[in-house]
Amino acid sequence: MKRLLLGEPLTSSGQDQQLLRKRMALPIFASDALSSVAYAPQELLMILLLGGLSFLTFSPWIALAVVVLLAVVVLSYRQLITAYPSGGGDYEVARTNLGEVPGVVVASALLVDYILTVAVSVAAGVDNIISALPVLNPWRVELAIGFVALLVAVNLRGVREASRAFALPTYLFIGSVGVMVATGLVRWAVGDAPVASSAQFGVEADGLTQVAVVLLLLRAFASGCSALTGVEAIANGVPAFRPPKDRNARTTLAIMGVIAISLFAGLTTLALVSGVRYAEDPCRLIGFDCSLPQPSLMAQVAAATFGMGSVPFYIVQATTACVLLLAANTAFNGFPLLGSVLARDGYAPKSLNTRGDRLVYSNGMILLGIAALAVLLIFQADLTTLIQLYIIGVFVSFSLGQIGMVRHWNRELRLIPRSATLERHAALRGRVVNSLGAVMTVVVLVIVTVTKFTHGAWLIFLAIPVLTALMMGVRRYYLHVEEETAIDDSVHFGSRGDVALVLVGSLHKPAAKAIDYALAARHDTTIAVHVSVTPRDTAQLEADWEEHHVPVPLVILESPYRQYAGPLAAFIGEYRKKHGSSVVTIYLPQYIVGHWWESFLHNRRARRLTQRLMLVHGVVVTLVPWMLDSSRLLYRRAARPLPGDDRAGLPATYGLVAHLAPAADAEPAADAEPPDPVPPERVPPERRSLEG
Amino acid sequence: MKRLLLGEPLTSSGQDQQLLRKRMALPIFASDALSSVAYAPQELLMILLLGGLSFLTFSPWIALAVVVLLAVVVLSYRQLITAYPSGGGDYEVARTNLGEVPGVVVASALLVDYILTVAVSVAAGVDNIISALPVLNPWRVELAIGFVALLVAVNLRGVREASRAFALPTYLFIGSVGVMVATGLVRWAVGDAPVASSAQFGVEADGLTQVAVVLLLLRAFASGCSALTGVEAIANGVPAFRPPKDRNARTTLAIMGVIAISLFAGLTTLALVSGVRYAEDPCRLIGFDCSLPQPSLMAQVAAATFGMGSVPFYIVQATTACVLLLAANTAFNGFPLLGSVLARDGYAPKSLNTRGDRLVYSNGMILLGIAALAVLLIFQADLTTLIQLYIIGVFVSFSLGQIGMVRHWNRELRLIPRSATLERHAALRGRVVNSLGAVMTVVVLVIVTVTKFTHGAWLIFLAIPVLTALMMGVRRYYLHVEEETAIDDSVHFGSRGDVALVLVGSLHKPAAKAIDYALAARHDTTIAVHVSVTPRDTAQLEADWEEHHVPVPLVILESPYRQYAGPLAAFIGEYRKKHGSSVVTIYLPQYIVGHWWESFLHNRRARRLTQRLMLVHGVVVTLVPWMLDSSRLLYRRAARPLPGDDRAGLPATYGLVAHLAPAADAEPAADAEPPDPVPPERVPPERRSLEG
Repeated sequence: MKRLLLGEPLTSSGQDQQLLRKRMALPIFASDALSSVAYAPQELLMILLLGGLSFLTFSPWIALAVVVLLAVVVLSYRQLITAYPSGGGDYEVARTNLGEVPGVVVASALLVDYILTVAVSVAAGVDNIISALPVLNPWRVELAIGFVALLVAVNLRGVREASRAFALPTYLFIGSVGVMVATGLVRWAVGDAPVASSAQFGVEADGLTQVAVVLLLLRAFASGCSALTGVEAIANGVPAFRPPKDRNARTTLAIMGVIAISLFAGLTTLALVSGVRYAEDPCRLIGFDCSLPQPSLMAQVAAATFGMGSVPFYIVQATTACVLLLAANTAFNGFPLLGSVLARDGYAPKSLNTRGDRLVYSNGMILLGIAALAVLLIFQADLTTLIQLYIIGVFVSFSLGQIGMVRHWNRELRLIPRSATLERHAALRGRVVNSLGAVMTVVVLVIVTVTKFTHGAWLIFLAIPVLTALMMGVRRYYLHVEEETAIDDSVHFGSRGDVALVLVGSLHKPAAKAIDYALAARHDTTIAVHVSVTPRDTAQLEADWEEHHVPVPLVILESPYRQYAGPLAAFIGEYRKKHGSSVVTIYLPQYIVGHWWESFLHNRRARRLTQRLMLVHGVVVTLVPWMLDSSRLLYRRAARPLPGDDRAGLPATYGLVAHLAPAADAEPAADAEPPDPVPPERVPPERRSLEG
Repeated sequence: MKRLLLGEPLTSSGQDQQLLRKRMALPIFASDALSSVAYAPQELLMILLLGGLSFLTFSPWIALAVVVLLAVVVLSYRQLITAYPSGGGDYEVARTNLGEVPGVVVASALLVDYILTVAVSVAAGVDNIISALPVLNPWRVELAIGFVALLVAVNLRGVREASRAFALPTYLFIGSVGVMVATGLVRWAVGDAPVASSAQFGVEADGLTQVAVVLLLLRAFASGCSALTGVEAIANGVPAFRPPKDRNARTTLAIMGVIAISLFAGLTTLALVSGVRYAEDPCRLIGFDCSLPQPSLMAQVAAATFGMGSVPFYIVQATTACVLLLAANTAFNGFPLLGSVLARDGYAPKSLNTRGDRLVYSNGMILLGIAALAVLLIFQADLTTLIQLYIIGVFVSFSLGQIGMVRHWNRELRLIPRSATLERHAALRGRVVNSLGAVMTVVVLVIVTVTKFTHGAWLIFLAIPVLTALMMGVRRYYLHVEEETAIDDSVHFGSRGDVALVLVGSLHKPAAKAIDYALAARHDTTIAVHVSVTPRDTAQLEADWEEHHVPVPLVILESPYRQYAGPLAAFIGEYRKKHGSSVVTIYLPQYIVGHWWESFLHNRRARRLTQRLMLVHGVVVTLVPWMLDSSRLLYRRAARPLPGDDRAGLPATYGLVAHLAPAADAEPAADAEPPDPVPPERVPPERRSLEG
């Protein structure tokens, strides 16, 4: 089942073949930034429209400001890739240059962003699907959930398959939106400007004070800045590029910047030309019929240019929806990678740094999917609300990253000798670019914070510190554990005194197997222990013990309170009082069953007891499995053997070990390995590969 | 926390002191039957009213039929107690006399009945509370759920406390309802008959065909039979009586019968006299104002007799509600007891036969609570619907129990010699009584089935076979496991060849402890095994190994697929090929943490690996605990030591066993127990008590 869903497992050395060409990396990492074009103009115009129709005249200027900012940020990130090609991105830059806490703050902001990237992109994608197929409107949230689940499944299969499946739609999106913009602008130039269906709607607005006007313009700019989201993705994904990694990444970033700027500018212009009205509250503000969903700006422009319901209209909508889903997919590359870096550095649970069968960080992907689903459910897949949350986190990491880069270049300049003119020149240029980037992103962060705080952004100002505190706590915890368990002078080998206690409920084969194995391990002393709860069972056991000539002494412990761990712990205490301190190994027979429901039919005593006994000083617990017939199912289910794992070929352990026939070409066990009373010598480590 | 809620633990020998006097057993076991009086007359009259007001003239005759039936059933159960005083009740009778399947069918019916006893009694109790305090009406279901939770909590504390807490209300109920009936009848006799507030309502009804009339009368009789529910409780609870158990139980049953008949007859008469109208659909049928809850029959009679809102009215309602809750409590005695008997016989999971700290079968109680909650939620605590379900199960077990008793006496009569006149006489009388009981209960079962089948009873005809099949399946499973694990000729001790593999990730104290313990156990061979997933970690381990002079050889297994179990299983296979078959003990270091959230921060690899490795032939897994500092919490939480359990006094295992100072008066361990190369001799079992 797992195989069918995920495909064959991949070897660790297969990692290099998973690296991406530029033409594959562009759809994977740039789709986030490119897809922003699908919602940024819409959010920008929507805010302006709050002030009335006349405010739309400001839009070219605000769009220009966004374009300039986008260009500066792209240039800044090219510098970042040069300096930090290892893919830690803003997190690594901030941690290295600004210190631990800013680094973790950036990491928190990025983690939140990845989650919101999924939520925003899926919500926008669903919006565009519904714009083309309004009958799907009642299933908005369900559709969003379905797409997130699909993304998790696709990504668990591994990075290259995902790339292949999604490369085409991105190029189709760039192509179709490009053709649409060109067509529209040409029609405008020849005097046949397209007219949007909503162009008829007027907008009533109260007169605004001068302060309110400025604030509204700033808010519109802040919303337009959502066009910048996702620019950082390439800088975080450098290790996934083919060598020369940093040059390829920089080139891809530049290509992406040019495409994003063209599409954003073109689409905004076309929307203005065709007179699109998109409002936050369409029924009240523009008299829209609210029984239908408001079509997205993209859909309105496409309908105006190509005609509603025409084939090119559907192509634009389909590729837009696809590229938005691919943008969500970007986060499924970034989040697990960042998670694994954080886990490596000790800020996140180690399980995030474990690659699954398919070489992807499965746990991180599943975590991201769950978080995105939660966000989509809580905000009911409402795009505008989600974007308010989104921009803050993006600019927190932008700003801290750029400030860190300025520091980086300052330090570099101190280190580079005056003679190395070329390097100094590069570093100076880097400092200028990143300083500009830092100033601009900080200013935008302030604008975004001021204008969006009450619109939901406060949630992010809560989430980032909480995440930061959690990660610092995890780090402290790991350091503490490491300190606690580090080898020191107190460690010396050679404990003496050893007793094995075999816990016996009644004399059946599982108990006999445990006794046999305990004897085979040649402990100093082996004792069978029975905790007497029901006198009848105890009497039966004593009789069986005599009858079957069991070769170990049986000790019976009275348990007036029907407990097991208590009397056992007391017995161990008494034993040590008599015989000196010793290592105690408790053998517990345990059933292995094949169906989940069988576990209800067996006492979970062995498991509970294990947990309790492990708390007793100097005690280890040996679980002796007894496979019931039904456990053959476990083999049947795992019937397809993995390479290097002959699990499926192993026989089930039905009887005692005595049943295990020695391999035909092997000497008898007892002769091959005579008991060795002196402690084994230290043998130099021997490297041993199963492949060879 | 657990102690606070449940009280001190009790010893197994304390069981006798938990036995009940008759005056305590009556409220515990008879409250179910007595409390039926609170709803049986109401359900009887409600059905009759469907036919119109004139049908109320039939009610004395129907009530008489119910009384006769009740008397016969009480007499029948007195015979059953004589013959089967062990408390298996109808289940034991049916299983012994009719065979396995009928026995299990009765058990299923009884289990269902116990669940419905709780649901019906709680629902009726809440109805009576709401009749007195109508403001509580919106919280009907919530109140019912709260009461079930309370009952579970009270009963987990143990049987005697429950009895004490509930004895007084039962006697108050008998007293107050008795006084009410007497007062009402006296007032009637002196010509001042009480008049119910609903007496004004007329009932419109269509003319009925003769068949419909008969069917309606039979339905009314069937509903009136709900007065019989709970009669079997005493027969099932005989072991909880003080000796002479059977005589005391028989006496209690007779007392209960007399009281139940008096109250039922009296209350029905009084309801007729005062003209109470109680309808299934009060707004339509009797023009009742449905914005208010319809008061129960008991409340209407009490209001008519004593005046609405008077002190005696509230006393009657309070004691009625209390005795209904006590009836629900009956099931919390019966269900776990039956569950433990079934578990003992192998028809139910063994965990139902495990007594908790307080000598009660805790698991059974919790199971009953959950089932009752589910039923209450599904049927929204609607009394009439629940009663339809209830009666069927009751009469299934009545009928099969009585038929079984007839068979029992037949067999007895064959066995008793002709000379033993006294015994023969008793057996003959028993046969007559039980035959009468059998005939009557079977007839009633048919009537109840016919009249109630479409009203919800079909659910029971589904539930009983399903439960029966499940229990038969459980039995088959246990027999199969027993057969599989029974000691046979294939069992012989003395496996040879033994190797310990210590799984090492990196060289920290937990790994060092595992190595130290493996050495202390003196296996034939001890090898440290490292599964190489990250080359850097492996290199570090090799360096540490050299540096710290670890006295065991280190084997490194390449794991190209980042798996652990696979390469280990392959290594074991290769080792056996070279050295012959051997018992393999795998030592796994495992962290013990103090907070639940810490487990997220450690890989669960040890647990997953344990599950996988236990599937490999001839492998046992030894868990070597390493207590992190935080695990001290576990000791603090369990700070109050139990008698015979010095758990709280044990020091936590922080370091290696070498840190464990030998007890002052003990010889050194090595001298006390020199390694013994010959297998230990069989020593006769030694009985050893920690109490002495």
